[in-house]
Amino acid sequence: MTEDQIRALLDNFKSGAVSSEEVLQRLRSLPFEDLGFANIDHHRSLRQGFPEVVFGAGKTPEQVVGIVEAMNRHEHNILVTRTTLETFKQVKQAIPAAEYRETARAIVIQKDDRVTGKGRILLATAGTADLPVAEEAAVTARIMGNTVDTLYDVGVAGIHRLLDRRQKLLDARVVIVVAGMDGALPSVVGGLVAAPVIAVPTSVGYGASFHGVSALLTMLNSCASNVTVVNIDNGYGAAVVASLINRL
Amino acid sequence: MTEDQIRALLDNFKSGAVSSEEVLQRLRSLPFEDLGFANIDHHRSLRQGFPEVVFGAGKTPEQVVGIVEAMNRHEHNILVTRTTLETFKQVKQAIPAAEYRETARAIVIQKDDRVTGKGRILLATAGTADLPVAEEAAVTARIMGNTVDTLYDVGVAGIHRLLDRRQKLLDARVVIVVAGMDGALPSVVGGLVAAPVIAVPTSVGYGASFHGVSALLTMLNSCASNVTVVNIDNGYGAAVVASLINRL
Amino acid sequence: MTEDQIRALLDNFKSGAVSSEEVLQRLRSLPFEDLGFANIDHHRSLRQGFPEVVFGAGKTPEQVVGIVEAMNRHEHNILVTRTTLETFKQVKQAIPAAEYRETARAIVIQKDDRVTGKGRILLATAGTADLPVAEEAAVTARIMGNTVDTLYDVGVAGIHRLLDRRQKLLDARVVIVVAGMDGALPSVVGGLVAAPVIAVPTSVGYGASFHGVSALLTMLNSCASNVTVVNIDNGYGAAVVASLINRL
Amino acid sequence: MTEDQIRALLDNFKSGAVSSEEVLQRLRSLPFEDLGFANIDHHRSLRQGFPEVVFGAGKTPEQVVGIVEAMNRHEHNILVTRTTLETFKQVKQAIPAAEYRETARAIVIQKDDRVTGKGRILLATAGTADLPVAEEAAVTARIMGNTVDTLYDVGVAGIHRLLDRRQKLLDARVVIVVAGMDGALPSVVGGLVAAPVIAVPTSVGYGASFHGVSALLTMLNSCASNVTVVNIDNGYGAAVVASLINRL
Amino acid sequence: MTEDQIRALLDNFKSGAVSSEEVLQRLRSLPFEDLGFANIDHHRSLRQGFPEVVFGAGKTPEQVVGIVEAMNRHEHNILVTRTTLETFKQVKQAIPAAEYRETARAIVIQKDDRVTGKGRILLATAGTADLPVAEEAAVTARIMGNTVDTLYDVGVAGIHRLLDRRQKLLDARVVIVVAGMDGALPSVVGGLVAAPVIAVPTSVGYGASFHGVSALLTMLNSCASNVTVVNIDNGYGAAVVASLINRL
Amino acid sequence: MTEDQIRALLDNFKSGAVSSEEVLQRLRSLPFEDLGFANIDHHRSLRQGFPEVVFGAGKTPEQVVGIVEAMNRHEHNILVTRTTLETFKQVKQAIPAAEYRETARAIVIQKDDRVTGKGRILLATAGTADLPVAEEAAVTARIMGNTVDTLYDVGVAGIHRLLDRRQKLLDARVVIVVAGMDGALPSVVGGLVAAPVIAVPTSVGYGASFHGVSALLTMLNSCASNVTVVNIDNGYGAAVVASLINRL
Amino acid sequence: MTEDQIRALLDNFKSGAVSSEEVLQRLRSLPFEDLGFANIDHHRSLRQGFPEVVFGAGKTPEQVVGIVEAMNRHEHNILVTRTTLETFKQVKQAIPAAEYRETARAIVIQKDDRVTGKGRILLATAGTADLPVAEEAAVTARIMGNTVDTLYDVGVAGIHRLLDRRQKLLDARVVIVVAGMDGALPSVVGGLVAAPVIAVPTSVGYGASFHGVSALLTMLNSCASNVTVVNIDNGYGAAVVASLINRL
Amino acid sequence: MTEDQIRALLDNFKSGAVSSEEVLQRLRSLPFEDLGFANIDHHRSLRQGFPEVVFGAGKTPEQVVGIVEAMNRHEHNILVTRTTLETFKQVKQAIPAAEYRETARAIVIQKDDRVTGKGRILLATAGTADLPVAEEAAVTARIMGNTVDTLYDVGVAGIHRLLDRRQKLLDARVVIVVAGMDGALPSVVGGLVAAPVIAVPTSVGYGASFHGVSALLTMLNSCASNVTVVNIDNGYGAAVVASLINRL
Repeated sequence: MTEDQIRALLDNFKSGAVSSEEVLQRLRSLPFEDLGFANIDHHRSLRQGFPEVVFGAGKTPEQVVGIVEAMNRHEHNILVTRTTLETFKQVKQAIPAAEYRETARAIVIQKDDRVTGKGRILLATAGTADLPVAEEAAVTARIMGNTVDTLYDVGVAGIHRLLDRRQKLLDARVVIVVAGMDGALPSVVGGLVAAPVIAVPTSVGYGASFHGVSALLTMLNSCASNVTVVNIDNGYGAAVVASLINRL
Repeated sequence: MTEDQIRALLDNFKSGAVSSEEVLQRLRSLPFEDLGFANIDHHRSLRQGFPEVVFGAGKTPEQVVGIVEAMNRHEHNILVTRTTLETFKQVKQAIPAAEYRETARAIVIQKDDRVTGKGRILLATAGTADLPVAEEAAVTARIMGNTVDTLYDVGVAGIHRLLDRRQKLLDARVVIVVAGMDGALPSVVGGLVAAPVIAVPTSVGYGASFHGVSALLTMLNSCASNVTVVNIDNGYGAAVVASLINRL
Repeated sequence: MTEDQIRALLDNFKSGAVSSEEVLQRLRSLPFEDLGFANIDHHRSLRQGFPEVVFGAGKTPEQVVGIVEAMNRHEHNILVTRTTLETFKQVKQAIPAAEYRETARAIVIQKDDRVTGKGRILLATAGTADLPVAEEAAVTARIMGNTVDTLYDVGVAGIHRLLDRRQKLLDARVVIVVAGMDGALPSVVGGLVAAPVIAVPTSVGYGASFHGVSALLTMLNSCASNVTVVNIDNGYGAAVVASLINRL
Repeated sequence: MTEDQIRALLDNFKSGAVSSEEVLQRLRSLPFEDLGFANIDHHRSLRQGFPEVVFGAGKTPEQVVGIVEAMNRHEHNILVTRTTLETFKQVKQAIPAAEYRETARAIVIQKDDRVTGKGRILLATAGTADLPVAEEAAVTARIMGNTVDTLYDVGVAGIHRLLDRRQKLLDARVVIVVAGMDGALPSVVGGLVAAPVIAVPTSVGYGASFHGVSALLTMLNSCASNVTVVNIDNGYGAAVVASLINRL
Repeated sequence: MTEDQIRALLDNFKSGAVSSEEVLQRLRSLPFEDLGFANIDHHRSLRQGFPEVVFGAGKTPEQVVGIVEAMNRHEHNILVTRTTLETFKQVKQAIPAAEYRETARAIVIQKDDRVTGKGRILLATAGTADLPVAEEAAVTARIMGNTVDTLYDVGVAGIHRLLDRRQKLLDARVVIVVAGMDGALPSVVGGLVAAPVIAVPTSVGYGASFHGVSALLTMLNSCASNVTVVNIDNGYGAAVVASLINRL
Repeated sequence: MTEDQIRALLDNFKSGAVSSEEVLQRLRSLPFEDLGFANIDHHRSLRQGFPEVVFGAGKTPEQVVGIVEAMNRHEHNILVTRTTLETFKQVKQAIPAAEYRETARAIVIQKDDRVTGKGRILLATAGTADLPVAEEAAVTARIMGNTVDTLYDVGVAGIHRLLDRRQKLLDARVVIVVAGMDGALPSVVGGLVAAPVIAVPTSVGYGASFHGVSALLTMLNSCASNVTVVNIDNGYGAAVVASLINRL
Repeated sequence: MTEDQIRALLDNFKSGAVSSEEVLQRLRSLPFEDLGFANIDHHRSLRQGFPEVVFGAGKTPEQVVGIVEAMNRHEHNILVTRTTLETFKQVKQAIPAAEYRETARAIVIQKDDRVTGKGRILLATAGTADLPVAEEAAVTARIMGNTVDTLYDVGVAGIHRLLDRRQKLLDARVVIVVAGMDGALPSVVGGLVAAPVIAVPTSVGYGASFHGVSALLTMLNSCASNVTVVNIDNGYGAAVVASLINRL
Repeated sequence: MTEDQIRALLDNFKSGAVSSEEVLQRLRSLPFEDLGFANIDHHRSLRQGFPEVVFGAGKTPEQVVGIVEAMNRHEHNILVTRTTLETFKQVKQAIPAAEYRETARAIVIQKDDRVTGKGRILLATAGTADLPVAEEAAVTARIMGNTVDTLYDVGVAGIHRLLDRRQKLLDARVVIVVAGMDGALPSVVGGLVAAPVIAVPTSVGYGASFHGVSALLTMLNSCASNVTVVNIDNGYGAAVVASLINRL
C-alpha cells in the first residue's frame, strides 16, 4: 500500500465510503515499507548510491546471470562477490560491461564512478596469501565510491616493513587490516593510528590456525582500543563499514 | 633524545664538534618517540582530548590511587574502568572531584566537558542485564566528548519495542548495540539504520550462551553488512571506536 | 507372537494343553511388539498414517531401491530424504509413481493425500540458501498430511520483509523457522506469534558460522520462550514434530 | 496510541480538524502495540492467561520485590524463576499470598488456578539431581494451567524403571524429558511415545559433561524424530512450549 | 644382546677374559628386549597368539604388500585394517590365501583359527550406518580367536528391538557397543548386563554430531558404571581389549 | 505384579473368573521387573555382592544419612563417593561402623570383606596430585572384593620410576592408570603389559590442560591398543569395570 | 641395586656362589637408576646444579614444609613455585634462609649463586598484568644461574616502547616473551631478534581471551619462525628451557 | 634513504643549504631499513648464512619458479617447503641444481654445505606416519648447516625401542620430537635428556585426535619441563629454532 493508496483510503473514509473500522482493519495489515515508514534494506543501498550486491557462493551461473540482469535494469553499480571465472563468462555474454577481478573473485558492473568517500581507506595485509580477502575489500570499497590505498605484506614479524610506510597509515581516514595465522597486525596498526581500524581475520594458515579462528581471537582481544572485527574472510563486510565511516 | 637534543647535536655537527659518523651513530639508536617521530600511544590520547584510562580489573585500590594521582597532574579527563566502590572511596579521598558510576563500575574525573563528537552515539541493549556493559560504554563515550542517547531493553523477541522508537536509531551517527544470550539485536538494528553499528556481545545468559560466545558468534555472522564486533563485555572499546567515528 | 498367538496360548492353558509354567516361560521372552504391548517405532508411523521414511545419505541407489520396493508393498506414503537425482532415476524405474523434489533432495511416493493436520504449518527461512533444508521440511510436512505455508527470505536484517507478511505468521498453528549464519530469525518470529516455534539451524554461512554452530547456539539462547531447536540442517525432524503438534 | 485515540484521530480528520498529511504523519510514528497491530510480548502473556514472569537471576531482592509489586496490581498469576529463599522472604512481606517452591527455586503468586491445558504434560527426569530443573518446569506448567504428571529418576541405565511405568508416558499429550550426564533419556522416551518430546539438558555431571554440553549434543542428535531441544537447564522454556502445545 | 650372549659374557667374565668394568659397561647399554627383560610390543602379539596388525590408512598398496610379505614368513594370522579393495588385489597376488572383508575394509590372512576366548563377545550397533566400524571389530575379534555374536540396528529410539533379544546380551562375556549420532546405546546396554561394556563412538551423523564427538561425550558420561570408551571409529581397539578380557 | 500374582491370574482365567481379554489387558501393563523378566539394576549390585553406592556430590549431609540408613538395613557393603568430612560425621553418628577415607573423599561401611576378584588390580598414577582420584578407585575396588596394588607417582617424564617396578605391572590382571596434565602414562603402561588398561584422565593441571580435556584426548588417542577410557576424574567407574573384569 | 651391589653380584658369580641363572634373574629386575643406567630426573637437576623444585599449587603448607625440609639436607638451591605467603611463613620458621618473592608467588632458598648461564636471558611482557608469570620465570632463571634482563609493558599496541629499547633485545642470548590478551608480542620480538624466543601465553584478559587460549593460539601461529611456545602461565617451564639454552 | 643520502643531507646542512628544521623533517620519515638501523628480517637470514625460504603451499608452480629464480641470483641456499613434485619439475628446468626431497615435500638448492651447528640435532618420531613432518625438519636443519641424527618410529607404546637407543638421545645438543595421535613421546624424551626438546605435534591420527589438537595439548601439558612446542605439522619452525640453539 503506497502513500497514495493511504491518501485514497482516507478520502474514502472522509466521504463515508469506508467506515472507521475498515480503515483500522486496513491499517492493521499495512505494509510497512509501502508507506515509507520503514528503512527498507534492499532500497537503502540504492538510495545511498550503494551498489546492488549478489553473494555468489552457492549460486549457479544461471542464477547469478538472472539476478544480475534484473538488477541491471536500474542505473546502479552491481557487485557479485565470491564468484568464479565460469560465472563471469556467462554474465559477460549477457552484460558486456561486466568486468572480472580475478584475485577478488568478484564481478563488477560499474556505471557510476563518482568518489563519495571523504578520505582514503587504507587496506593493509599481513601476507600475500591474504590478498584474495583484501582485494574483495578493495573492489567493494572502490565500487562504493572510495579512494583505496594498499599496504600489502607488512606482517608484524618484519615490523620495519610497516613502520617504513607509516605515512600511508597516518593518511587514512579508516584502516582495514587483513591477516591470517597469528592475526597480530591489527594490534600494531591500531597503536600507530588514531583512525578506526576494521580487522578482518583470514582462514590463511594451518594446524592451530583453525581456519581463521586463531586470527579472529587475536583480533577480538586486541590491546589496541580502536579495533573492531568482522567475520573470517569477510572482506566485503569490512569494506561496507569502512565506506559508511568514510562518508561521514 | 628530545628534539632539542637533536638540534643541539646538529649544531655541534655544523660547528665541527661532532663528526658525521658520530651523528649517524647517534641517530642509529635514536629513540623514536623522543623525536616525535612516533605516534606515541600514551601521548595520543592526551593530544586528542581523550581521557587517560586505567583498566581497573586486577589492580589493588592502592595501585589505582597511585596511577590516578600521577595522571591527575595534567588537565585531562580520567577514567577508571572495571573498578569497585571500595577503590572509588580511596580515590575520592585523594581526589575529591572523582565520581563513581555504579552500574558502569567506573570512576570518572571530568575536567573538560566539551562536546567534540559531531552527532549522537546511540546505545541500545537487548535486556536489562546488559546494562553494566552498556553503561561502561556510555560513561566512556561521554567522557570522550559525545552526546549519548540510549534505547535499553529492546530485545528482538519483542520487536515492537525497537520499531516503536526507530527514530532514535535513525538520528544516530553511530550505534552501539549491546546484547547477550542470542545476540540477535545487532542484525535487526543493522538492517534498520545506515550508520555503522558496533556490536558488543555480553556474558549475560546461561547454559549454551557459554559466557557470551553464543552472542559473539551471532554478531560475527550478522547478515547485516554494517556490523562490526568487539570482545565480549568490551563496552569501553566499543565506545572508543564510536567516538573516533563520531569525530570524523 | 501376535495377540492371536497369545489367545491360542491362553486357550491351550485353559484346556490343560500347556502348564502355567509353560505360559510363564513363553511370556518371559514375549516379543514386546508382537503383542502390540509396545508402541513399536517402525509400526507406529504406519498406524498413524505417517509415511515410511528412508534416510538416504550414505546408501547406494541399489540399497534405496531395495528398501523402497519392500516398503511399497503396503499402502503407505514413502519418503526418501537426503538422496540424489541418480538414485531417484533408479527408483523411478522400479516404481513409476515416484516423484523427485529437487530442492529438497527427496523422493516422494504419495498414495494417501488426505490432510490430517488441523491447522497450517508455516515455514519461514532467513535466506534463499536455507531453501534445501526448508524444502525438506515442507515435503515431509506435506506427505504427513499438513497444509504448509511458506515465507522465504525474510531474514532479520530486513525486518520489514517479515513484518509485512505477519498475517501468515499469525495464521499458523506451528511455525518452523530455518536460518543459518546469525540464526536470529526464530527469536524475532517467536516474539511475534503465540504458536510453538521449531527452529532449524542450517550450515549456511562461512568463517565463524562453523557449519551451523553459530546459528544453533543463537537459537538455543533465544530470548523468546516459545522456541525449541533441532539439529543443524534437520528439516525432516522439525517437520515431524510440527506434524505431531498440528494433529493435536 | 490506543485504538480509541486512532478513532478520535480519524474523526478529527473527517471533520476537517486535522489534514490528511497530519494523519499520515501521526501514523508514521504510530506505536505499533497501541493500535493492537502488534502481538505485543509483555501483553501477550496477559491476554492468553499466561503468568507474568520475572527471571530472578542477577536481580537483587529489592528489584524483584519492586517488579512483583507492580505486576501484582493486575489479576494475573506471577512467577519468579531462578530466585532465592532470601528474596522470597522479602516478597512475602510485601505480598502475603506469595509461596516459595524450594526445589524449583521459584516464587509463585497464583490467583487463577483454572486448568486450560487439554491433556497431561508428563515430566520425566533421568536422575534425582535433575530435579531443580524439572521442578522449575513443573511449577511453570502448573501456573500456566496444566495438569502435570511426573516420572522421576528413570534414567536409561535402569531401563525397566521407565518401561515399567510406560502407561504414564502413553497418557501424556506432551512429554518434557530432563537429563544431564549422557542425556540419553529423550531418545528412549521419544521412541516409546507418539507425542512431541521436549528435551531439557541439565548441567548435572562432571568432567566431560562440560556443564551440560554433552547432554545437549546427545539430545540434538537424538535418533528419535519427535524430539526438540531447549537450552541447558531451561526448565521454564520447556514448560512454556509444552503449555502452548497442550492448549491446541 | 640375547640371553645366550649374556651367558657368554658372564662366562668370559668368570674366566677372566673380560673385567667387571667391561661387564658393567656392556650392561649399561644392554638392549632391553634382547634379554627378554622387556614385554616387547611387536613380539607380544606373536607370543600371545595375537595377529600381526597393519594399520592400512595412509599406506600405499606397495607398502602394505611389502609389510605383509615380511609378516607372512611366520605362522601368525595377519590383519590389515582401514585398507582398500585396490590394496587387497595386490596383496592377493602376493599371498593367495588373503581374503577381503569388504564392510570392515580389512584384509585377513588366517592360518590359525583356534578359539582361545572363553566366552562370547557380543557386538551391538545402534544403526546400520555403524556397520563398518562394527565389522572391523568383528573381524579383529574373530582373528584373535573369539566367538562373536552380533546384534545390529538396535538403537534406543526403538528400545523393543534391544529388549526383545536381551538373551544375547546376557549370554556375552564382554559387550562391544558401536553407536554414532546420540551415542545412547551403551548406557542402555550397560544397565542390562553385568559384563564389561566397551563403547565405540562412530562418526556417523551430521550437524551437531561433530563427526562423532557427540557420541563420544555421551559415552564418557554414561550413567552405567560398567562402560569404558575408545576413540571414535576405533573398532579395532575395542576388539583388542574385548579379546584380552575374554581370555581371562 | 509378582510371579505369584501372575499364577493367580492364570488360575482365575482357567476357572473362568477372568476373561482372556482381561488377561491380555493385565499383561499389557505387566511390570517387567516384578516377573523377574528384567535384569534390575538396583538389584544387580546386591545379587552380585556389589556394594550399594551413593554419589555424594550435591547431596546434603541429611540426605546422605537418610539414604545410607535405608541401605544399612541389608547386609551389603555401602560406599559413599565424593562426600565430605562433615557428611561423614553425621553418618558416623547414625552408623558407628562407618569409616572415612579422607584422600578418596569416601565413606565406607564394610560388612563383607571376602576377596572375590581372581587376581590383582594395579593402580598407577602419574603424579601425587592424582591421588584423590586413584584412592577413589582403590576404595571402590577393595569394597568390591579385590586385592589392590598401587604404583603412585610414576609419570612418564621420569620413566625409570615406572620401569623399575615393572614387575608390579606384569603381576596385575587389570591395570587402572590415573593421570592428569599430558595424560601420557596409559600409553606407556599399555605397551608394557598384556592386561587390559583402564585409563582415568584427571582434572589435574592448569592452562591448556582444560580441566582434564588434554589428558582425556591423549588417552583416547593412545597408540597402545589395550587402553580404554572413562570420564575425567571417574575413579569409581574405572574400579567398577576393573572389578567386573577381575571376576571373570 | 647400586653399582657396588652389581660388582658384588659379579664377584659372587665368579666365585661360584651364585649361578649364571641367578645373575640373569637378578638383572631381569634390575632397578634402572641404581646402576646409573638411567638419566634419573630427580637426580639430574642436582647433578646439573639445577634447583630442587616444588610445584606448590594444591599442596598444604605442612606438605610444602615437609618436602622442603627434606630437600634442604642437600646443598642445592630450592624453589617453590605457585605458593602463598601463608605457606612461606611456615617454611620461614623451619628454614630461616627462605625468602619470598611476592609477585612471582615463589619461595627461594638460595645456597649457590654462581652464574652459569653464558649470556643474558631477556624477559619481555606485553602488559603489567603479565608480571606474576614473568616474575616466576625471572626467579626461576636467576636461581638456575642466569643473568636476567627485563623489558616490561612493551605491548604491540604501543610499538615504539619496544623499538625504543631494541638494544636490550639484541643483547639477549635467549628471549622469553610473556603476553596475554592478543598474545601478539612474540611475533614482533621474533622478527627483531635472531635469538630463540620462548613465548608464554598468560591467562590475562577477559571474554574471548578464554583464559589464555587466544594468546596461546596466536603464539602457535606466529609468523616469526624462531618462536616456540609453552603452556599458559608456565613461566617456570619457559625459564627452564631458556636456562638449558643459555648454558650451551 | 641510504646512508650516503644521509651523509649528503648532513653535508648540505653543514654548508647551510638546508636548515636544521629541514633535516628534522627528513629524519622524521626516515625509512628504517635504508639506514641499516633495522634488523631487517628478509636480510637477516642472508647475513646469518640462513637459507632463503619459500612457503610453497598455495603458490602456483609459476609463482614458485619466479621467486626462486630471483633468490638464485645470490649465493645463498634456497629451500621451498610444502611444495609438489609438479612444482619441482618446473623449478628443475629453470635451475638444474635443484633437488627434490620427496617425503619432506621440499625443494633444495644447496650452494653452501658448511656445517655451522656445534652439535647434533636429533629428530625422533613416534610413528612412520610422522615422517613427512620429520623430514621437513631434517631437510631444514641440514640446509641450515647442522648434523642431523634420526630416531624414527620410537612411540611410547613400545618404550624399549626408545630406551634401547638412548645414547642417540644423550648425544644430541637439541632434540626435535615429532608425534601425532597421543603426542606422548616428548614427555618421555624430555625426561631422558638434559637438552632442550622441541615438540612438533602432527595431524596424524583419526577421531578424537582432531587433526593434531590432541597431540598439541599433550605436548603443552608435558610434565617434562624442558619441552617447548610449535604449531601442528610445523617441522620447518622446529628446525629453525633447533638451528638457532645449535649455533650458540
